[in-house]
Amino acid sequence: MTYCVGLRLEKGLVFMSDTRTNSGVDNISQFKKLFTWAQPGERVITMLTAGNLATTQTVVSLIDERTKAPEDRNPSILEAPSMFDVARQVGAMLRDVIRTASPTGERADSKFDATIILGGQIRGGAPRLFMIYPEGNFLEASEDTPFFQIGETKYGRPIILRAYEPTMSFEEAVKLLFVSFDSTIKANLSVGLPLDLQTYESDSFEIGHQRRVTADDPYYMSVSQGWGDALKSAFNALPDFHF
Amino acid sequence: MTYCVGLRLEKGLVFMSDTRTNSGVDNISQFKKLFTWAQPGERVITMLTAGNLATTQTVVSLIDERTKAPEDRNPSILEAPSMFDVARQVGAMLRDVIRTASPTGERADSKFDATIILGGQIRGGAPRLFMIYPEGNFLEASEDTPFFQIGETKYGRPIILRAYEPTMSFEEAVKLLFVSFDSTIKANLSVGLPLDLQTYESDSFEIGHQRRVTADDPYYMSVSQGWGDALKSAFNALPDFHF
Repeated sequence: MTYCVGLRLEKGLVFMSDTRTNSGVDNISQFKKLFTWAQPGERVITMLTAGNLATTQTVVSLIDERTKAPEDRNPSILEAPSMFDVARQVGAMLRDVIRTASPTGERADSKFDATIILGGQIRGGAPRLFMIYPEGNFLEASEDTPFFQIGETKYGRPIILRAYEPTMSFEEAVKLLFVSFDSTIKANLSVGLPLDLQTYESDSFEIGHQRRVTADDPYYMSVSQGWGDALKSAFNALPDFHF
Repeated sequence: MTYCVGLRLEKGLVFMSDTRTNSGVDNISQFKKLFTWAQPGERVITMLTAGNLATTQTVVSLIDERTKAPEDRNPSILEAPSMFDVARQVGAMLRDVIRTASPTGERADSKFDATIILGGQIRGGAPRLFMIYPEGNFLEASEDTPFFQIGETKYGRPIILRAYEPTMSFEEAVKLLFVSFDSTIKANLSVGLPLDLQTYESDSFEIGHQRRVTADDPYYMSVSQGWGDALKSAFNALPDFHF
């Protein structure tokens, strides 16, 4: 399993992913699930992946054009005129990779499935955030649904629903995501530290903050330990029930 | 979907269930999922059900011995010598009902599947709480795992993990379950009000509090509305993040 979140703020975009992959509980590994392509001053494109690791790694390699000799590589998503076009390209790649791996052509519920969150900005357009499905089609985040989650989404969802504000600073958004990830990590063994974090500030056309958060990160530890007490205080602050 | 929780406290047992059943999102109904059999002074047995409604209703009818004429009905779980034996009887009924409905004899992932939380006390034994699987086998709650959830368990789990204490009063436990159910109801359309609530006080051998909590219940509304603010306060109380 996996847990990744892409958040759209007024100030820009925030991405966070865990790094655990597993095939059964007795075979866990650490892999990056957050990938960025950038042409400073022109475009920044970030991708979060969940699902079959062979599928998502192939999609990343195809975007990187690793089928070509190193000197001929020129990722076409760095040429695409719009984020919408990038989402279409990535969606088509994802669908084709899954189709190739599934001999019967089945896609739904295939074990080769993967889902992608894609966000970024290309000069001339606004920052945009998409969720791409295994079938290659996709949704765009809106004011009504300003964030996407993929992987193990449920444990960490209530706190985002309750505490997200579009006017949040990047720092507040990272704190919110830490709480959401901590709740998930405590409940599901297949989501694990370290976390990858990246921000993108609107109209900056360069990668914002990038950080790998390890299990001994003092701030993460303070959130993880403090949230239990904070939740208990919140719980105690509610009016008491009487039969 | 469904959401039910059975909690083991030092003081006794607490059960809560929603009442929504659905077959697709356009076909929702309201059905009871909390059932109690009691012989005051001797035993109290409570059951929570999740899964295929035809299966769970059949199990309840079999326990009630509705295959017999009304005057001959004498539920054998009211004769069983121990809660363990009750769990075995109910597990066997559940397995047989599922097997009968599944022509191929398949059980795992069958759409006729159901899961049951069973708890109570029979004079001579301690209060006990079980989770019964579609295959008819079962787990018992222990000090390490003092509660069971069935149905849509994920959204409401983090708060129980963080705030449950075995020494809680019934009132505090009900407040905790209200928060857990509210988080689930806000995230999953297939879990819905009203809620059924029942407590059992250890060694009382009679049904404790029983209540149906409707959407206009003033206390439920105060928890539902207050929890968002309480969570935000808890979130703000955490140390701030800085890049």
